[in-house]
Amino acid sequence: MKKLSSKVYIALLHYPVLNKKGDIVVSAVTNLDLHDIARAAKTYGVENYYVVTPSIDQKVLVDDIKSHWTEGKGGTLNPKRKEALELIKVETSLEKVIDDITASSSKPKVVVTTAKKINGSLSIKELKEKLIDDMPFLILFGTGWGLSAEIMEKADYIMEPLNGVTDYNHLSVRSAASIIFDRLLG
Amino acid sequence: MKKLSSKVYIALLHYPVLNKKGDIVVSAVTNLDLHDIARAAKTYGVENYYVVTPSIDQKVLVDDIKSHWTEGKGGTLNPKRKEALELIKVETSLEKVIDDITASSSKPKVVVTTAKKINGSLSIKELKEKLIDDMPFLILFGTGWGLSAEIMEKADYIMEPLNGVTDYNHLSVRSAASIIFDRLLG
Repeated sequence: MKKLSSKVYIALLHYPVLNKKGDIVVSAVTNLDLHDIARAAKTYGVENYYVVTPSIDQKVLVDDIKSHWTEGKGGTLNPKRKEALELIKVETSLEKVIDDITASSSKPKVVVTTAKKINGSLSIKELKEKLIDDMPFLILFGTGWGLSAEIMEKADYIMEPLNGVTDYNHLSVRSAASIIFDRLLG
Repeated sequence: MKKLSSKVYIALLHYPVLNKKGDIVVSAVTNLDLHDIARAAKTYGVENYYVVTPSIDQKVLVDDIKSHWTEGKGGTLNPKRKEALELIKVETSLEKVIDDITASSSKPKVVVTTAKKINGSLSIKELKEKLIDDMPFLILFGTGWGLSAEIMEKADYIMEPLNGVTDYNHLSVRSAASIIFDRLLG
């Protein structure tokens, strides 16, 4: 079996995402999305965790939370939390995330996650087989009611929805990200 | 391969758990522990999700949150959330959880989870092989800095810590529970 060698980056998008009615909106940042997903990303060797919001207020908020844990009292009290939150970078758009990865590595293949069944989507096993070369991968997660159609259409790959053992598929993005890291990178 | 047939219950303990210094304390309930773990439990076919706290104020709080989503406006706005939070039962001690399961089914085998390496612990694969008979299983998760030694010693089985691909093992309980459900029940 070939060893995984692709660098894996992740991004949590707060725009363009859907609300319950299917409108495209900017969602608010949730504090535990920062902590939980950063800790899981650190556990599974993710390179960076991009938090994407076009709102300058929200960008400042995330930067403040990050620096509390990486430079402030939080990091002194809890050095392990510091290691995780150091993975966070805040960007105002997906394009800037792709530019940042391209500048430090090369242009990433973009994988979108979704709770919906979509034709042409790939299983985690199929995606895992693609993680064996030098090309970086960027996995996108949506907040609210999921990523907009525009983001889905521009992606290189669509990951099949996670299946549990029931027909209930309403995991939090924190749970879904953790399970996807375990299956894809574990 | 034999089909899983054991009923699986889970409990999140807020006492007796450790604080950072290793003292036994009562931890506070975190709202997203209720939602995230209930949603993951529903996805993986868990029978009930017990939230254990000896604090009557905290018990009332959890009951209020649950009924907002199961009987109040939350359930009307988000019926899928209702289905998940209906799995929650609040008890004031682990003994009462065991009594409740025993009354509706039979005495459960108790499995504790931990982030520490402990002699005699079983892999998830080994535990999965035990989930094939009619005996119910109760999986315990700790809050704070983990379950107390007393709880660990009384358990029937100790589950090995989750391993990612790095030596960082500081997942949130929400992430750890999600990954354990996926590996053990998925």
